[in-house]
Amino acid sequence: MDENHVMIFDTTLRDGEQVPGCKLNTPQKIEIARHLEALGVDVIEAGFPISSPGDFKSVVEISKHVTEPIVCGLSRGVKKDIETAAEALKYARRPRIHTGIGTSDSHIKYKFKSNRERILEWAAEAVAHAKKFVEDVEFYAEDAGRTDNEYLARVCEAAIKSGATVLNIPDTTGYCLPDEYGAKIKYLVDNVRGIENVVISAHCHNDLGLATANSIAAVMNGARQIECTINGIGERAGNTALEEVVMIMKQHPQLNVHNRINAKLLNPISRLVAERMGMLVQPNKAIVGTNAFAHSSGIHQDGVIKNRETYEIIDPIEVGVDESMIVLTARSGRAALAYRAHKIGYQLTKLDLDKVYKVFLDHADLKKEILDEDIHYIIGEAGIQQKQEV
Amino acid sequence: MDENHVMIFDTTLRDGEQVPGCKLNTPQKIEIARHLEALGVDVIEAGFPISSPGDFKSVVEISKHVTEPIVCGLSRGVKKDIETAAEALKYARRPRIHTGIGTSDSHIKYKFKSNRERILEWAAEAVAHAKKFVEDVEFYAEDAGRTDNEYLARVCEAAIKSGATVLNIPDTTGYCLPDEYGAKIKYLVDNVRGIENVVISAHCHNDLGLATANSIAAVMNGARQIECTINGIGERAGNTALEEVVMIMKQHPQLNVHNRINAKLLNPISRLVAERMGMLVQPNKAIVGTNAFAHSSGIHQDGVIKNRETYEIIDPIEVGVDESMIVLTARSGRAALAYRAHKIGYQLTKLDLDKVYKVFLDHADLKKEILDEDIHYIIGEAGIQQKQEV
Repeated sequence: MDENHVMIFDTTLRDGEQVPGCKLNTPQKIEIARHLEALGVDVIEAGFPISSPGDFKSVVEISKHVTEPIVCGLSRGVKKDIETAAEALKYARRPRIHTGIGTSDSHIKYKFKSNRERILEWAAEAVAHAKKFVEDVEFYAEDAGRTDNEYLARVCEAAIKSGATVLNIPDTTGYCLPDEYGAKIKYLVDNVRGIENVVISAHCHNDLGLATANSIAAVMNGARQIECTINGIGERAGNTALEEVVMIMKQHPQLNVHNRINAKLLNPISRLVAERMGMLVQPNKAIVGTNAFAHSSGIHQDGVIKNRETYEIIDPIEVGVDESMIVLTARSGRAALAYRAHKIGYQLTKLDLDKVYKVFLDHADLKKEILDEDIHYIIGEAGIQQKQEV
Repeated sequence: MDENHVMIFDTTLRDGEQVPGCKLNTPQKIEIARHLEALGVDVIEAGFPISSPGDFKSVVEISKHVTEPIVCGLSRGVKKDIETAAEALKYARRPRIHTGIGTSDSHIKYKFKSNRERILEWAAEAVAHAKKFVEDVEFYAEDAGRTDNEYLARVCEAAIKSGATVLNIPDTTGYCLPDEYGAKIKYLVDNVRGIENVVISAHCHNDLGLATANSIAAVMNGARQIECTINGIGERAGNTALEEVVMIMKQHPQLNVHNRINAKLLNPISRLVAERMGMLVQPNKAIVGTNAFAHSSGIHQDGVIKNRETYEIIDPIEVGVDESMIVLTARSGRAALAYRAHKIGYQLTKLDLDKVYKVFLDHADLKKEILDEDIHYIIGEAGIQQKQEV
């Protein structure tokens, strides 16, 4: 395996779908899974088979419909769950069972009313049971973000001994700071026997707005799989946004890691998921929001018109957007107005432009956005005689 | 001054409003400014006075209407801009002029067609000119994120010599990784003469989803002001989200910093800004999204019902939300169903619950969300005779 390859584990159909209002039916899930395959994800977490008959069926059908990516099914660390996941995955060309248990003191005490030693055994048993059905078993230590590192290392070591191929270290509550989460991964790399033979996975939540930064901090410290969703959807404040971590790795070659994602498909799949789930993307969402490449202030517009790179680090074409938009508002300057007027056929002299700009500002102060039809009107009102040269 | 106090510089009305479709009129801006004052921000950037007559007027009126926060006006580093900003701020009790210039090679070469030495002089002249009108002058080194640190330090030193009270180090294109941006701040702290007498400010953009993490990295390295907006709105992918950095500082006492924000007002002001600007907040937005505290998966719901802290790090009441919602979907478990059934008056035995849950799953597989009226129906269909005990 290429040691600089970061696997993209997409959980849009599991952790992403686990959201009020986002439920999809089986044909919709198959459609999204096929787009995820085309996008180039390494793993598709297709569902949580024991949770409902509909979800079970979706995992079965996705397993039949995709060939390249690993298809993964979630289970709690109990026999019935694991067996149901194995059953749902029987048609998968590359099946993976994802199983585990909560390891933080809060989870051990309140959720399981148990103790550390019992949880450790439980983790080992769950992995060993899953291993009877599939070769590829991912172990999750739920709430690892708030789990004491020393105990977490013991649990991870036990999971590896039982045959885990991937160790998922979730920051379930979105609590960690990037330094802290990165240090946790490093602690495991340094202290868990056999960890060099398995893949460490980052699974972060965005409750404090840090999921992306935490995932990258994990990669910088040795993680080689990121669990993420299209548009960052997911329970509460959502999961790590796939499009963000992918573009960070592409934009920062000094990280010395890469992934297989075809970035040109990021915007199309973002729209597909938003539409199917009825889960809107806010206009200022990084990479995939409708404003992500839109410029409306005069200073920025002037810069972008002179040279795109003054204000844009990503060429919109790279991520499947047609072109940066120059939107005219009351914060726009002469350069943007001249640019847009030129696009619809006017060649304004500097003197003309001064006159038109004055009229433009009066209109723009009253209106959210100045459209092409307004420009014709404004140029007329400014008394400019020049004909359009379309 | 308290050296652990981090100033919150809100630029919702300037960088936030500089967005396609977000334009506000003067009364709307006054309304938001008053709410920002109640929220406890230290600085309100009220606008960019030279950009339009409407924006000039808004800065004048906001200056008249708020008393506690510093009111700041933006200007490019040119005399006319600075003088217009000073004029707009004349009624402010605590006026600040924000002026500066691009310092990256890309900006120097393409935007100004100039050279480093000339830009250095220009920066010093701009600050000196602003200083004629107000005591409090914030200098910005635009595109500092991509500016060579050694040159950036020289520019900062020149700005301080000319009287700057605040140094703003913007990551204008949202390019930096947290480590990199933190290291940049540290470099300035270590290498700029006189920097101990001024406030270092972080101004980050979210093009790669890292604005919040970068701002916190800056604070960890000595910055004591964060420039941010409500809901993270702003040009392209937006600015640092005020609600995120504020809650990170509150949730992580080990950072040893604090701010004056009344977090209980975060959700109300988020809704106000979203509504006035017509700029929707996606449901999974951290802290202020409608789903930020909603649980729908069985595992999580069971945990939250047993003890809120198993899955929530922030009590929703702290940030002005009434209560965590337990939403019923096909991913919900028995505990959530029993909880919601109990809320509407049913006491189900374990045996009853098993029957009801089976019927529930059939319904939930067909429907995005199960509402209270559905529960009545489902319980009836399951053949449970028990009366509601409302």
